[in-house]
Amino acid sequence: MTTIDNTLRLARAGIDTYRQPVVFMREDCHVCRAEGFAALTRIEVTLGDRSIIATLNVLTDGGWLPSDTAALSEEAWAILQPEPGDRARFSHPEPPESVSAIRAKVYGETLEQDRFDAIVRDVLDRRLSDLDLAAFIAACAGDRLSIAETIALTRSMQAAGETLDWGGADIFDKHCVGGLPGNRTTPIVVSIVAAAGLMIPKTSSRAITSPAGTADTMEVLAPVALDIPALRRVVEAEGGCIVWGGNLALSPADDLLIRIERPLDFDSDGQLVASVLSKKAAVGAKRVLIDVPVGPTAKVRSVETAAALERRLRAVGEAIGLTLSIHQSDGTSPVGNGIGPALEAQDVLAVLRRDKDAPGDLRDRALDLAGALLDLAPEGQATGGRAAAEQLLDSGGAEAKFMAICAAQGGFSEPGEARYHAVVTARANGRLAAIDNRRIARTAKLAGAPRQKLAGLRLLARVGDRIEYGKPLFEIHADTLGELEYARSYAEAQTGIFTIAKDG
Amino acid sequence: MTTIDNTLRLARAGIDTYRQPVVFMREDCHVCRAEGFAALTRIEVTLGDRSIIATLNVLTDGGWLPSDTAALSEEAWAILQPEPGDRARFSHPEPPESVSAIRAKVYGETLEQDRFDAIVRDVLDRRLSDLDLAAFIAACAGDRLSIAETIALTRSMQAAGETLDWGGADIFDKHCVGGLPGNRTTPIVVSIVAAAGLMIPKTSSRAITSPAGTADTMEVLAPVALDIPALRRVVEAEGGCIVWGGNLALSPADDLLIRIERPLDFDSDGQLVASVLSKKAAVGAKRVLIDVPVGPTAKVRSVETAAALERRLRAVGEAIGLTLSIHQSDGTSPVGNGIGPALEAQDVLAVLRRDKDAPGDLRDRALDLAGALLDLAPEGQATGGRAAAEQLLDSGGAEAKFMAICAAQGGFSEPGEARYHAVVTARANGRLAAIDNRRIARTAKLAGAPRQKLAGLRLLARVGDRIEYGKPLFEIHADTLGELEYARSYAEAQTGIFTIAKDG
Repeated sequence: MTTIDNTLRLARAGIDTYRQPVVFMREDCHVCRAEGFAALTRIEVTLGDRSIIATLNVLTDGGWLPSDTAALSEEAWAILQPEPGDRARFSHPEPPESVSAIRAKVYGETLEQDRFDAIVRDVLDRRLSDLDLAAFIAACAGDRLSIAETIALTRSMQAAGETLDWGGADIFDKHCVGGLPGNRTTPIVVSIVAAAGLMIPKTSSRAITSPAGTADTMEVLAPVALDIPALRRVVEAEGGCIVWGGNLALSPADDLLIRIERPLDFDSDGQLVASVLSKKAAVGAKRVLIDVPVGPTAKVRSVETAAALERRLRAVGEAIGLTLSIHQSDGTSPVGNGIGPALEAQDVLAVLRRDKDAPGDLRDRALDLAGALLDLAPEGQATGGRAAAEQLLDSGGAEAKFMAICAAQGGFSEPGEARYHAVVTARANGRLAAIDNRRIARTAKLAGAPRQKLAGLRLLARVGDRIEYGKPLFEIHADTLGELEYARSYAEAQTGIFTIAKDG
Repeated sequence: MTTIDNTLRLARAGIDTYRQPVVFMREDCHVCRAEGFAALTRIEVTLGDRSIIATLNVLTDGGWLPSDTAALSEEAWAILQPEPGDRARFSHPEPPESVSAIRAKVYGETLEQDRFDAIVRDVLDRRLSDLDLAAFIAACAGDRLSIAETIALTRSMQAAGETLDWGGADIFDKHCVGGLPGNRTTPIVVSIVAAAGLMIPKTSSRAITSPAGTADTMEVLAPVALDIPALRRVVEAEGGCIVWGGNLALSPADDLLIRIERPLDFDSDGQLVASVLSKKAAVGAKRVLIDVPVGPTAKVRSVETAAALERRLRAVGEAIGLTLSIHQSDGTSPVGNGIGPALEAQDVLAVLRRDKDAPGDLRDRALDLAGALLDLAPEGQATGGRAAAEQLLDSGGAEAKFMAICAAQGGFSEPGEARYHAVVTARANGRLAAIDNRRIARTAKLAGAPRQKLAGLRLLARVGDRIEYGKPLFEIHADTLGELEYARSYAEAQTGIFTIAKDG
């Protein structure tokens, strides 16, 4: 019998398709022709004992790809890890097992634990296409996941990654649902809670659509890309840490789903709760504070939406053994003065250092949350946490703890200053009635945040202030003149970022 | 004020991403950096008065792309039509209007006509990402589109393309829902109906997942890639045609949705009905026969499923002014002897030519369908069609009409023979109880169909036949020895393609 040669030499395409494995083949190559592969076909690529399913892009004129060669996107390259000269085998994959579970959910069926397990397993093995994932997310959107299904999905996602074991210690954690620009309470809360002697191994994310994530802000002050042994060393020494969760693989399936959820931008309480609580469980947390800012331009826009989310959080938390405290907070406008990694880091330091011009709203929110966490402790009185938190902050205990955590993570740095500044002023008289969270965030991103750590905004007026024509509203910070002007033209072309109400 | 240069020179990447516009940029280019573009960002690309939204792939090491240049996938290149040296502008797009309609449907709301219109418009303008389309398809899957919504979607899709105007003539058409290998009745039915003096401008598709579409089979016998004026000339001269619908843009939105529906493989009666009937309305048809093969390995697997589909077809047909005749047929096994373009063409010719070994099942099915279409004619007796069809076939009238249609389409060719053949034989004694439509189709594809027109299978045993060990079951036809062996090894490794029941 003739053996069919369905192998090609592998090359690195150097193309980042954001976690979607893609393979590039010449239309005229023998494998494309023999297998009948066409653009967007799903192809199994096997190299030794590793294999992935990738999406095919076809090079119609051969172009930059040598003959007898297939090129891999960065993600496919990273998974298969070819050596120079390696040849991979290309074939039609069997449809992954979980496709039928996704189809069932799309048709409105209720899924059991084993089917969520199958979906999460195939997500991790990159066997599902982005289209399959989008369909799954759409099928779970709104309230189409029941509470029981949310519990099952949470368990599947947790089981798919590592769970940190703290030998029975009571582990605390916090999470904020939905971004509010500048709301960088985490470093302050962790410092207070760790200063109180509790353990809080905090993992945070980098910004994806916002001008700064907690990991971006913290990175201005200390290294955050720790691995699990390093995280453990910091927490065992200091009781707390503030590190980037992205390379800890604590909920790797969630990371892969989020990259599809974000562009789709569907709100799904079920997937949100599974995402948050699976990560908290994976970090080994037992007592978790959830902060839910509510406001018209925040992620959670109404008290009713917040209440439904809270019910689901409580039910799932109970099922997986987490004690939750859920805290609704004011989400009507940005918090603190700075928006952008370094500018927010300056606010955090000002609060910890008890500077007289430290933003009072950031301080208050951090104390509320730290207090609620202290109240969650088994030996807490369930009411005295706020006062204890204030004492730990005012005494300098939290500042000292923060510096010790930074030192343990690799060393503290003072934040720098961006090279260029521009001030945007008011064009009306009145009272500052509202700041649009989404458009102010967009302005900070146009200035370069979070890629440029020093870029962003400093707010010079707060909601409630009397505003006069020409009064500075905020200052743009940027590393290049181009970005400075780019952010300024956007801000000046918008009328609704600041709502100034006539109070004459 | 500084002006930001967000332009890049355009190059052709020569990469076929199957209708998804993709733009490739160097990670270090000034536009990526100033705009904060990252992999998978949606980017608006503007060149003169043309603009598209494309998905970004980032070249991490520059690679094959010169600096100050962005490369476009084939689809993006075709839409923007750049001249050498053209520079395009790259910016963040506003979210398309219909994203909120898709979100509403995902959350279970009922959509009105104007929102389907918005979705279809944005599909055509390539403003929605593949992820958005997958979410929309998932949100409409199963029976989540009401009848009223199906009618609205059908109208939106029809309105988005051309509608052929036949000056009030009564136009006939047929459609078969879901493939059955070898079920190539269309050329025979069109020939009979046109020979009866009725008008039937038939457009057919090429295979996407099957070993042959009607357009592939017909292309063996005559040219099929006609444009609308040519189609009109053929139909005005001969009463009928059998052409490829793919480049007529009769329902262009449907073509774009289908490329996402196929890999997802969700059955959605609503989208199926909208797809079929919008195309029938676009071709100007008034009286349409729908053939629904029902069988365990056919697309429609049960009589109940067929009944629900029929109800929806009838309601939508009535709403948009089509008279439908719906015909359930036996979908338990392949039809005719040949599977693959040329092999099916040989069956079609054998029936038209009244060869004594012409496949009787193909002849019977074609006569049933042609008869039902004749019964749909206003002057028909609603019962005598079958006999009239038989007379037109047996008299040679249908054959003469078919040859005239082929001549009008550009000239008839006799089908050729593949270079290599191999026979697969039975490994048991008994009665042939069933043939698996899906696996027999896969075998034909591995032999090279439909890319190689001469490749495919010829069945040598039919359901009900007595089978003895060693008796030939089917013959594989291929253009290369590699493909021949590839199909043979697959077939020999499968046990369930042919079910041989012990009757001893």
